[in-house]
Amino acid sequence: MKKSLGAKTLLPTAPVWVVGTYDADGKPNVMTASWGGICCSKPPCIGVSLRAATYSHAAIVARKAFTVSVPSEAHVREADYFGIASGRDTDKFEDCGLTAVRSDLVDAPYVLEFPVVVECRLLETVELGLHTQFIGEILDVKASPEVLDEKGHLDSVRVKPFHYSPGSHAYYGLGELLGSGFSLGKDLKGRA
Amino acid sequence: MKKSLGAKTLLPTAPVWVVGTYDADGKPNVMTASWGGICCSKPPCIGVSLRAATYSHAAIVARKAFTVSVPSEAHVREADYFGIASGRDTDKFEDCGLTAVRSDLVDAPYVLEFPVVVECRLLETVELGLHTQFIGEILDVKASPEVLDEKGHLDSVRVKPFHYSPGSHAYYGLGELLGSGFSLGKDLKGRA
Repeated sequence: MKKSLGAKTLLPTAPVWVVGTYDADGKPNVMTASWGGICCSKPPCIGVSLRAATYSHAAIVARKAFTVSVPSEAHVREADYFGIASGRDTDKFEDCGLTAVRSDLVDAPYVLEFPVVVECRLLETVELGLHTQFIGEILDVKASPEVLDEKGHLDSVRVKPFHYSPGSHAYYGLGELLGSGFSLGKDLKGRA
Repeated sequence: MKKSLGAKTLLPTAPVWVVGTYDADGKPNVMTASWGGICCSKPPCIGVSLRAATYSHAAIVARKAFTVSVPSEAHVREADYFGIASGRDTDKFEDCGLTAVRSDLVDAPYVLEFPVVVECRLLETVELGLHTQFIGEILDVKASPEVLDEKGHLDSVRVKPFHYSPGSHAYYGLGELLGSGFSLGKDLKGRA
């Protein structure tokens, strides 16, 4: 018998994505968002949800662009900070000694020191309530050479991404390899 | 210098969510989706993206409801299978010896044996291209007692969720605790 926990956003894990934007003066800003996910393969799209009260919200509306930089474990403190402070009050890049790089594809900056960055042009804006979902078309994914395998493919183990647990307000790293997708379950077909 | 990987859905990890629906005959069905995320806190919303060609897509359109069941590591094979087979051809619950439970809140079934389930009524449908994003309002989250801590809160470590890596087509478990959210980064404020 399952126990009801109520109408809450209580999934076991959510991503830790750092959304990069330029403000009206061209100052680079970042904020951490855990409400988000990939939402289409063709065109490749990613959705991130921000409250209208955030400084980044207005920046995405104005510039119609954002980036998502994925931090590795080495920067869990900085990623947490990016979700606490506001770009209205401080320069978060300077506070953390991190480097803003202007995307060559969209009007937004990304975090040089983070291993994976996604450059997006704003495709759809979905007003849901407290949060606005910004759906970005992915124009490119860029990665640091050290997180690519011998064939040049993105290797999640080398990225060392981490996740946020909304229930316990805690961050968890990536665990062990459990098996291959579209393979592990193949032999269950028509077993009944 | 980062390396361009192209316009792809190459985030290091994505969730492994099992979407539950009833077909036109009332047969329970499940499919695994990794394109999804929480997208609003108030009302609490979750988005899952499905291709129009899937059997589940028509079911959500017709019933305006779905569930998300979150598997634990013990059911990684079944979750993988749910992403391979189609409910058009087989009864996936029967194939896996799993139990479909009718939600008492929405017109959709969930997986009894999975530790966390989310019951959603369809709120928004966003056509993006190959995928349709279905945004569901979360009416309740239910959990098995063994994944709750002493205070009755959802404990991600006990859930043992796992993630999908789109780049390597592999599943990874949950790693170690890295620290607390809205806490780890506090002392970085105004450091510059």
